[in-house]
Amino acid sequence: MPRRVIAYDREMRWAPDARGRLERAAFELFSERGFEAITIPEITARAGLTTRTYFRYFADKREVIFWGNEVPEAAASLIAAAPSDLDPVEVIRLVLHDIATSQFDGHREQTAAWRRIINANNSLRDRDARKRADLVRAARAAFIERGEPALHATVLAELGVLVFQVALEEWVAEQEPRPMAGTIDDVMTLLTVDAQVGS
Amino acid sequence: MPRRVIAYDREMRWAPDARGRLERAAFELFSERGFEAITIPEITARAGLTTRTYFRYFADKREVIFWGNEVPEAAASLIAAAPSDLDPVEVIRLVLHDIATSQFDGHREQTAAWRRIINANNSLRDRDARKRADLVRAARAAFIERGEPALHATVLAELGVLVFQVALEEWVAEQEPRPMAGTIDDVMTLLTVDAQVGS
Repeated sequence: MPRRVIAYDREMRWAPDARGRLERAAFELFSERGFEAITIPEITARAGLTTRTYFRYFADKREVIFWGNEVPEAAASLIAAAPSDLDPVEVIRLVLHDIATSQFDGHREQTAAWRRIINANNSLRDRDARKRADLVRAARAAFIERGEPALHATVLAELGVLVFQVALEEWVAEQEPRPMAGTIDDVMTLLTVDAQVGS
Repeated sequence: MPRRVIAYDREMRWAPDARGRLERAAFELFSERGFEAITIPEITARAGLTTRTYFRYFADKREVIFWGNEVPEAAASLIAAAPSDLDPVEVIRLVLHDIATSQFDGHREQTAAWRRIINANNSLRDRDARKRADLVRAARAAFIERGEPALHATVLAELGVLVFQVALEEWVAEQEPRPMAGTIDDVMTLLTVDAQVGS
């Protein structure tokens, strides 16, 4: 899935776009034969690079999928940058729309393929779930910075990530492709109706 | 953390409460010296059992912490058993109160210690996050059984697990011990206020 907010690679002097080549090679091989069947030497061979180069970028076979903290960092920056008088739930909507537009729209098929690879393997589901937990932490810290009390910040962060994750899985599965912001709004509407506790 | 809804152990003929002894030994050792420093032979030595017995119960060192599907199974059963005309969010409250009372009240210190062990290690955080994802799946299936549309069921399941997870971390950290249902209600109230989108 697309994860770069700022296109920047300090390693570029070693091998032009080595990281991107490794990622694309891994994506092709995992799509063809599944994550478990593939070895790191197969990935590096496909990318025309060495195993040593692979380990310069990624600690293990999973990390070629999960590298980068762009989404947590982008989410935290966007929460911080939202107008200070905006209702927190509208902050969530604004941030998710921005991430959807900048990171996901136009990459639906590739995102769907990555989700299939991840959801088929328990070790990748573990790692993906931790990535989600890291996103919650980053968003929580940003809501605290905005002056929300701790527990409130936790709930807002969890809520935002919940909407993002549910909308992502829904969006890649929808029959008719559309901008991801539409799916985000649908999930937020459902949530609003459900959360009217006791109404 | 306490995870047994029904006290039942089909392996008891081999070693009386072997699983419980291994779990208690692991808990003591992880608390004393951290998860990473401990080996499986140290756990089995403390429990007075063999490594072979350990692997009869647990696939690896992590699983002594994460064995059992009691919480997902209990949650699914309780969702199914809730009155059919009950508002879905009140179903969530009913189920979480029941789990809090039967599984957590009276075990706050032990639950807090398990949470500290888990939160200190990335591999355990991964596995814990997957356990959360499994709970979402079980709850989602139960809401679909109740007749909720698929996306609605996903949102309800995610919402319920969100409340449970946030309330659990909050409850073990509270200055004054109290029944976990009180913390659950506080989180649900916050969520209700937050989710009044655009109000």
